[in-house]
Amino acid sequence: MAIETRAEDLAQAVIDRMKDCKDPRFKSVMTSLISHIHAFAREVQLTPQEWMTALEFLTATGQKCDDKRQEFILISDTLGLSMQVVGIAQAKAIAANQNAVSATPATEATVQGPFFIEGAPVLPLGADLQGSLAGDPTHYSGKVTDLDGKPVHNCAFDVWSSDTEGFYDVQMGENPPMQLRAQLRTDAQGRYDFWSVKPAKYPVPIDGPGGAMLLAMGRHPFRPGHMHMMLRAEGFAPLVTHLFVSDSEYLDSDAVFGVRNSLIVDFNKHPPGVGPGGRVLDKPWQSCTYDFKLVPNA
Amino acid sequence: MAIETRAEDLAQAVIDRMKDCKDPRFKSVMTSLISHIHAFAREVQLTPQEWMTALEFLTATGQKCDDKRQEFILISDTLGLSMQVVGIAQAKAIAANQNAVSATPATEATVQGPFFIEGAPVLPLGADLQGSLAGDPTHYSGKVTDLDGKPVHNCAFDVWSSDTEGFYDVQMGENPPMQLRAQLRTDAQGRYDFWSVKPAKYPVPIDGPGGAMLLAMGRHPFRPGHMHMMLRAEGFAPLVTHLFVSDSEYLDSDAVFGVRNSLIVDFNKHPPGVGPGGRVLDKPWQSCTYDFKLVPNA
Repeated sequence: MAIETRAEDLAQAVIDRMKDCKDPRFKSVMTSLISHIHAFAREVQLTPQEWMTALEFLTATGQKCDDKRQEFILISDTLGLSMQVVGIAQAKAIAANQNAVSATPATEATVQGPFFIEGAPVLPLGADLQGSLAGDPTHYSGKVTDLDGKPVHNCAFDVWSSDTEGFYDVQMGENPPMQLRAQLRTDAQGRYDFWSVKPAKYPVPIDGPGGAMLLAMGRHPFRPGHMHMMLRAEGFAPLVTHLFVSDSEYLDSDAVFGVRNSLIVDFNKHPPGVGPGGRVLDKPWQSCTYDFKLVPNA
Repeated sequence: MAIETRAEDLAQAVIDRMKDCKDPRFKSVMTSLISHIHAFAREVQLTPQEWMTALEFLTATGQKCDDKRQEFILISDTLGLSMQVVGIAQAKAIAANQNAVSATPATEATVQGPFFIEGAPVLPLGADLQGSLAGDPTHYSGKVTDLDGKPVHNCAFDVWSSDTEGFYDVQMGENPPMQLRAQLRTDAQGRYDFWSVKPAKYPVPIDGPGGAMLLAMGRHPFRPGHMHMMLRAEGFAPLVTHLFVSDSEYLDSDAVFGVRNSLIVDFNKHPPGVGPGGRVLDKPWQSCTYDFKLVPNA
């Protein structure tokens, strides 16, 4: 005979159907997900029309994705979910490290965003990523250490950013060359340095379902200017983070909730002259210094 | 200065960003959704790898959809969400009807599923939808009334089902003709009748992300045999429902949680001879009778 389930018991009935699930983690994640989506539907008394609109939204979001565009990441970012996951992961990495409480704080993580490319040009320290793009030459430098200040040598140090207009290389025409991105390696003292530009604020893409959602929420789509970094070194938890430009707009309302106070840095202005590495500059340049502290693997 | 948000306050920060949202209903739906997805992520301590797997799953689901396949509906169905929304809508329609409490119960609703087509052939009462398909000829009849038993005349009465192998017309080859589906109209006494087949159990599609999810949950993909109905009449809430075959397997574990005890019907077997409408049958036939009660619009 049929076992009929009342609407208010439906979430539990769905969960009970997983009795033969072989993967305890999957089962526990799905149990929580099922509870929450049913609670959501009941809480808002979701109508069939709203439900269909949501399914059409999800479908359009999937179909907007291609090898250059990940619209679900955009939605996750703008709903703060990506940053939530980043926060959970970093808290776990720190908790797993027994020295963490007594040591100086690790550099905070933030969202990766959709513009990272594995396999960026490997360049020597001091390299210039600006190419022919506009903007004041800007020197980035600092060091990478563990939580006790000991240098981390040979750390793979990926950097990538928009230009001063807010565009990433992958957004510049068809099959654009890689620009404003590189992978460096820290030296024996844990030092890194490179030249690039000062990144500008820019809007996340608003020509797809994610943008439509954002605007319907009454929000602006801007991110403050920021330089992306991904640090990977043997024996340490990988770190994905940004440096945020301290005089940028939107620091208090980043569309993806990525700003950490500890990641906001001043950019210093310099007159034309001789810069770091003996570089002769015939126009004003800027500089930015930041030290990174990595969490050892447990 | 930046307003930095702690991970545990992030859901509220996202909600607070909707202060300029112009649509109160959208704002309230999003508020609940944001609360629940963040609570879910924190509750299961979602990892970046799991989060990425989820985004890739959603992307693949969107990309599996086309004009014949709606993979998000499949996922909603198999997670019981579609049935939850059906239950909410019917409870609302009944609550809005002042006579509902004292009258006989309305016919219960269930999921629409992905195989309804607007614009099925309009056929007269008594029509035969079986065409050249295998299976005992099966006669369906009954009447459509309001909650007080008063006939509903000229009700648009859509029916559609699988064949006795469990396949719908749209699953039969390229550009298949419409079969086993029609729109009838009730007569002045609210009566309907038509000939078709006795629908068989069948699996929901398991060749996409929805199927992968279902199998990972440790579940079977079957639905018990059922005939779909959609009833639309002026002055009444539309009703989307099924009749379930009482001797079908899987009544107690329908993959989409659609079974209602009140919708399970017996199919009666008859020897060759003269059937309803004077039809002469040279092989055994079956019959099924069911009366529908519609909820008036508020």
